Amino acid sequence: MNLLRQASAEGFGTALLVTVVVGSGIMAENLAQGNIAIALLANAIATGAALYVLITVFGPLSGAQFNPIVSIWQSFVAGQAARKSIAFIAAQILGGCLGAVLANLMFDLEAIQVSQKLRGGFGQLLGEVVASFGLILMLSSVLRHAPQNVATAVACYITSAYWFTSSTSFANPAVTIARIFSNTFAGISPASVLPFIAAQLAGMALAILAWRFLTEDS
Amino acid sequence: MNLLRQASAEGFGTALLVTVVVGSGIMAENLAQGNIAIALLANAIATGAALYVLITVFGPLSGAQFNPIVSIWQSFVAGQAARKSIAFIAAQILGGCLGAVLANLMFDLEAIQVSQKLRGGFGQLLGEVVASFGLILMLSSVLRHAPQNVATAVACYITSAYWFTSSTSFANPAVTIARIFSNTFAGISPASVLPFIAAQLAGMALAILAWRFLTEDS
Amino acid sequence: MNLLRQASAEGFGTALLVTVVVGSGIMAENLAQGNIAIALLANAIATGAALYVLITVFGPLSGAQFNPIVSIWQSFVAGQAARKSIAFIAAQILGGCLGAVLANLMFDLEAIQVSQKLRGGFGQLLGEVVASFGLILMLSSVLRHAPQNVATAVACYITSAYWFTSSTSFANPAVTIARIFSNTFAGISPASVLPFIAAQLAGMALAILAWRFLTEDS
Amino acid sequence: MNLLRQASAEGFGTALLVTVVVGSGIMAENLAQGNIAIALLANAIATGAALYVLITVFGPLSGAQFNPIVSIWQSFVAGQAARKSIAFIAAQILGGCLGAVLANLMFDLEAIQVSQKLRGGFGQLLGEVVASFGLILMLSSVLRHAPQNVATAVACYITSAYWFTSSTSFANPAVTIARIFSNTFAGISPASVLPFIAAQLAGMALAILAWRFLTEDS
Repeated sequence: MNLLRQASAEGFGTALLVTVVVGSGIMAENLAQGNIAIALLANAIATGAALYVLITVFGPLSGAQFNPIVSIWQSFVAGQAARKSIAFIAAQILGGCLGAVLANLMFDLEAIQVSQKLRGGFGQLLGEVVASFGLILMLSSVLRHAPQNVATAVACYITSAYWFTSSTSFANPAVTIARIFSNTFAGISPASVLPFIAAQLAGMALAILAWRFLTEDS
Repeated sequence: MNLLRQASAEGFGTALLVTVVVGSGIMAENLAQGNIAIALLANAIATGAALYVLITVFGPLSGAQFNPIVSIWQSFVAGQAARKSIAFIAAQILGGCLGAVLANLMFDLEAIQVSQKLRGGFGQLLGEVVASFGLILMLSSVLRHAPQNVATAVACYITSAYWFTSSTSFANPAVTIARIFSNTFAGISPASVLPFIAAQLAGMALAILAWRFLTEDS
Repeated sequence: MNLLRQASAEGFGTALLVTVVVGSGIMAENLAQGNIAIALLANAIATGAALYVLITVFGPLSGAQFNPIVSIWQSFVAGQAARKSIAFIAAQILGGCLGAVLANLMFDLEAIQVSQKLRGGFGQLLGEVVASFGLILMLSSVLRHAPQNVATAVACYITSAYWFTSSTSFANPAVTIARIFSNTFAGISPASVLPFIAAQLAGMALAILAWRFLTEDS
Repeated sequence: MNLLRQASAEGFGTALLVTVVVGSGIMAENLAQGNIAIALLANAIATGAALYVLITVFGPLSGAQFNPIVSIWQSFVAGQAARKSIAFIAAQILGGCLGAVLANLMFDLEAIQVSQKLRGGFGQLLGEVVASFGLILMLSSVLRHAPQNVATAVACYITSAYWFTSSTSFANPAVTIARIFSNTFAGISPASVLPFIAAQLAGMALAILAWRFLTEDS
């Protein structure tokens, strides 16, 4: 079945994305001897470079959405069937969690662990709104005007957003849920997840409004 | 109205650019534990990557000038209407200032603050002349010979110019004014702003002369 | 003879690749004053940037495989003649070893040395499986759907994989053997080589299965 | 006169290249607090990014050779007129020296200074041979098979070569001479210059032989 295969690709891709985010976070924390700036720089470069690859690889298979707010937005503005978005989101969440487990196993850590790292507060939630707003606004323009550059644009966006947002830019509900399962530099406590996801949805909604304002005829 | 919409895009884009410059500067200062080299490296990479994205996103909407010396230069050499440049510059300055406030809010700092960081002296002002000269000379050639690469070229230029100019390359009057409102690593005292802008305009003028010398028939 | 010339190109390219991997590893270790995070970041950026160049340069000459698992995979899925793969693999191993010697000579070290750096254990071997799996899965898609981007994709993949895999991503039997001859940051003890190569072959095999699952009609 | 204008472009471009190399070297040394690995990483990234820009900007004007061994090689293999190469080399050396002076002025240092930094020995000279060999071999292939990627390829090559060669890859006689005039991290003592240039010419000659071996019909 075509949808099953596409959803598998979303699951695979999101698993690898989380393996990169969590794995490079663990490696960075292990090597950085407390110098968090170096750790975040390595984490940002590794994640950005991997996004270029993952979007290039999985784009032709499933569209390489890897992110529930992207799938919801595609249903909202581009007519993607609701059942496709639902299947994709399930695959993204499941794949993401397996990706975190894989990263833990590679670094000889407990396979399943739960982060104790609380994240939140006004500033960081605003950071998630900004990060998600920028991601969807960017995709709105790039998918219309320069779709051949989408892999490069997403890679550059996330590399930058790790640094310019106060939350280090999760901007993805599936990745946020998956990062529960890493009690490291890259983790997030379950208690912090729902506000993060709410902020991400708010950022997506604002981006839809902003794009309409910037482009609609009137 | 078309001009209003284009000016809005300029304001939006410049706001996001300043959010990146100031936000990544705050993050870098917070994490770098006094190691300014790492902070500037992260700041440069974050800003360059964001410029690739912002020019790709806003280029089709408004031309993605984001910079009063670019708008003035476009009026001077490419016949851009004066009222368009004036509207763009107003939007760039307003947007830039709002971008600084947004960065402050994301990092739980005072929304409106005034930098005490004095910048200037012969060397740094020469640095601004060089930075602005290089920017406009680069755009002169790239817009004529390789316009499809302008986002990459600007990204690479600014990443490099953060390091090779003594002023860390402001090279943009709107961004310079906006950075007044960040009393951090990325800020600039109001007392230092006018000489910086004068140096930027001088660099632009020299670039126009250099480009004519390098290309005119004779 | 055409095959001899192509194999020479594979040997040349793999030699230069190992010179980069080992040379930048030595430089990084010399300069980093024990800060391994900085050393690995420089090593990853230098290797990724060189891979872009080497694949661009040698692609038109020999296909720029540089890697026995890539050559074996090409024989398995794309009909590359077995004798071509055998010649390429021999050239890759020989070239790689000469590249390590060249790096040693450039840094005034013993020309021929044997690493004492033991690598292994469940986590690192899983890391090699993941690294090799990702490499072959990536090539499966990119060579079919975006062959013009293969140099960029491999560069980004390896830059990222140095960080997200626990083994720092050797992912190449010829380079693994060659790194025996560097008793530095980048080296690997002979005792650790066979399990690494077995893991690399396993990753390749899994990638073939995964790609079939993701793409076959059914 | 056309040749005069092209030579001016070579002088301009080489001046800006040296301004970047020396300027970012000074900035890096000032900020890095003795952490040379960070300084070299910033220097490499700034130089690579600038090369992308400079080749994109000056390629359509003069070919963006910026390097006497490139000009000599073009005369040797591609029929570039000797008088053109001579004019280019003179402009490259003169421009390069002015670029070093400009960098010194930007950083409030003595405008004209002479480096005391001795460089040499077997390993570093071998490093220059390797660096120049790789540069010319790369250009041989890229100019024939992928000329649209030459700016990216040179940028990546030099970013990598700063790290994988023991000499940090001068690979350019004009830049080597110009770096005499910076008594900093990036400088080179006059006593070390001639052996460096000899090694660069040797690397160029070896690259011509290697390219013939790899590509000639037989």
